[in-house]
Amino acid sequence: MKFEDIPTPAVYRLSFYLRQLEALLQADKNTISSKQLGEALGYSDAQVRKDLAYFGQFGHPGIGYRVEELISHLRKILGTDKIWNVLLVGVGNLGRALIAYRGFLRKGFQLTAIFDADEHKVGQAFGDLIVSPMEKLPEIAARDNIKLAILAVPADAAQRVAEWLVSAGIRGILNFAPVNITVPQDVSVQSVDLAVQLEQLSFKMSLGDTDEV
Amino acid sequence: MKFEDIPTPAVYRLSFYLRQLEALLQADKNTISSKQLGEALGYSDAQVRKDLAYFGQFGHPGIGYRVEELISHLRKILGTDKIWNVLLVGVGNLGRALIAYRGFLRKGFQLTAIFDADEHKVGQAFGDLIVSPMEKLPEIAARDNIKLAILAVPADAAQRVAEWLVSAGIRGILNFAPVNITVPQDVSVQSVDLAVQLEQLSFKMSLGDTDEV
Repeated sequence: MKFEDIPTPAVYRLSFYLRQLEALLQADKNTISSKQLGEALGYSDAQVRKDLAYFGQFGHPGIGYRVEELISHLRKILGTDKIWNVLLVGVGNLGRALIAYRGFLRKGFQLTAIFDADEHKVGQAFGDLIVSPMEKLPEIAARDNIKLAILAVPADAAQRVAEWLVSAGIRGILNFAPVNITVPQDVSVQSVDLAVQLEQLSFKMSLGDTDEV
Repeated sequence: MKFEDIPTPAVYRLSFYLRQLEALLQADKNTISSKQLGEALGYSDAQVRKDLAYFGQFGHPGIGYRVEELISHLRKILGTDKIWNVLLVGVGNLGRALIAYRGFLRKGFQLTAIFDADEHKVGQAFGDLIVSPMEKLPEIAARDNIKLAILAVPADAAQRVAEWLVSAGIRGILNFAPVNITVPQDVSVQSVDLAVQLEQLSFKMSLGDTDEV
């Protein structure tokens, strides 16, 4: 089976399994069954086994999964067995919030460079990072082998900046601008669209009112 | 069919269809086929028809979908045919970025109250909103009929604040804290987990390296 054929939700669940397993390891738990792993996350054991089976045979008869071993497999599958250098474009409120967000580091991502088009922001320090001008982006991306970018610019600048990123060798973009961006097929985009998230909530909250359709 | 039985990804796609249709309406387009609607978003026409069929029969033979009519149906399904009042807890960098984010308003969500546990922040203005103390939350939520909350507090405060929100009558939480929160079954949580989003990207970017599993 090809990775491309694996359902997106299964890949999302891998992230949750990984997180859960990391918590178990911290708590000195060495093995776990698919039932226990699923229960902690609200999935059935069949779901857990099916999701993992896309990628290989990780269980041991009579034992279940070895926590440390499965963590190692999942990190390799998700590509976080190595550290990714990440750059960020746009040092507004959202950009600064992301710089302050410490969730990146422990998950295999390291924010190593930040950029802004505003010349007044260039040279300013945020945490241990100093804002570089946009024209330096290709040089810094190449020097630090950065393939992942976080786009935290206004909607009307997003497409232009995305093209600049792609031309600088960026292959994955986490897009926070509330707009669709178009990139070549070999570049991946993951959009964080708060309006969509809120709509999903309001959908769920409307369930009580109209249960049947 | 019950709403609960509809696959989550289909509900996500409704949000994207709605957005696309709104853009079409802006461009004075009055009708569209499932093929055209799908093409713009990278879905097959069969997918579009299947997703919409969960909710009703919206097409017209020989015409396709009437854009304005389908928008109206989708808003009703997603619960955004009315305006939701939303409150936000946590006025740090992320909270302030969300306050500045204008994507909410045009999608049927109105940020009407902001809260912080830090007494130094209480009384400060951000945009046209003034930070209220946490103990005022139940009173303000009841007064303004607020059922939706955005949680932008540190991880170690998230569970405690979530329980406070639930006790104040909040039924949907958009959680930005990088931690799982536990709520009663009749409360919905939508988590925006940037580490998970980045892992999805690194997974896709690793596809090129190991195509077969």
